[in-house]
Amino acid sequence: MSKAKLTRRTHCPISYALDVFGDKWTLLIIRDLMFKGKRYYREFAGSEEGIATNVLADRLARLEAEGLITRALDPENARQRVYGLTERGLELAPLLIEMILWSAAHDPESAADRAFVRDAKRDRGRLLRSITAAARARQSTHTR
Amino acid sequence: MSKAKLTRRTHCPISYALDVFGDKWTLLIIRDLMFKGKRYYREFAGSEEGIATNVLADRLARLEAEGLITRALDPENARQRVYGLTERGLELAPLLIEMILWSAAHDPESAADRAFVRDAKRDRGRLLRSITAAARARQSTHTR
Repeated sequence: MSKAKLTRRTHCPISYALDVFGDKWTLLIIRDLMFKGKRYYREFAGSEEGIATNVLADRLARLEAEGLITRALDPENARQRVYGLTERGLELAPLLIEMILWSAAHDPESAADRAFVRDAKRDRGRLLRSITAAARARQSTHTR
Repeated sequence: MSKAKLTRRTHCPISYALDVFGDKWTLLIIRDLMFKGKRYYREFAGSEEGIATNVLADRLARLEAEGLITRALDPENARQRVYGLTERGLELAPLLIEMILWSAAHDPESAADRAFVRDAKRDRGRLLRSITAAARARQSTHTR
């Protein structure tokens, strides 16, 4: 997995963050896990942005190497793997929220959910707790 | 400039944001403009991450096409261009702050400024206003 892990360029906090997840596909996989309830390779492969399977496999390996996601045997089907977010991955929620708010403000055709945007502006802490709790609940039903 | 502008894949707000600035180098240029007071091509080229000049030229063109940065004749030297952030670009500040906080929490060797991290946690609105005001002040000295 060392190939998948990038060398740090500097320890500037923005550069570090970008080394870890600063790639379109990487953050779309995090989005799928955090907001769309996706857990399986075939679900990520089916996202409407049309990720290529070699890119998907590479990014999943990189995310696991970086400690952002977990990969486990699926208790319901030992031939497939089920993915989940680590705490380190879940802690990207505030960043994704800012991304959603920025797009909602700047993309005239934004598909951003209005209730989500309203909640993010009104009580960001509460929204964060509900996102995190929902992701944890989904993951615990698979790994018990 | 149309070549530099990407086609939108979807209007998912996260995908839209990533289409606009979801690239390591793009966000490092925004960082240089927002936090490091850099304004010139040679200053971006000199950043410690070592951006290649062809990548830098491409990303500057893309950022301008996307309306995140401005490019103007330098009033002090008509042979060079001076760059600045648009309002749309300045509004990426909350996202960069979240990136800094995430790295400060997860990179044991983080170079994140402690006072910045403390201010971001204590009064995020105030920090945002001071970042935006400083960036605007820098830019106005060049364009008046």
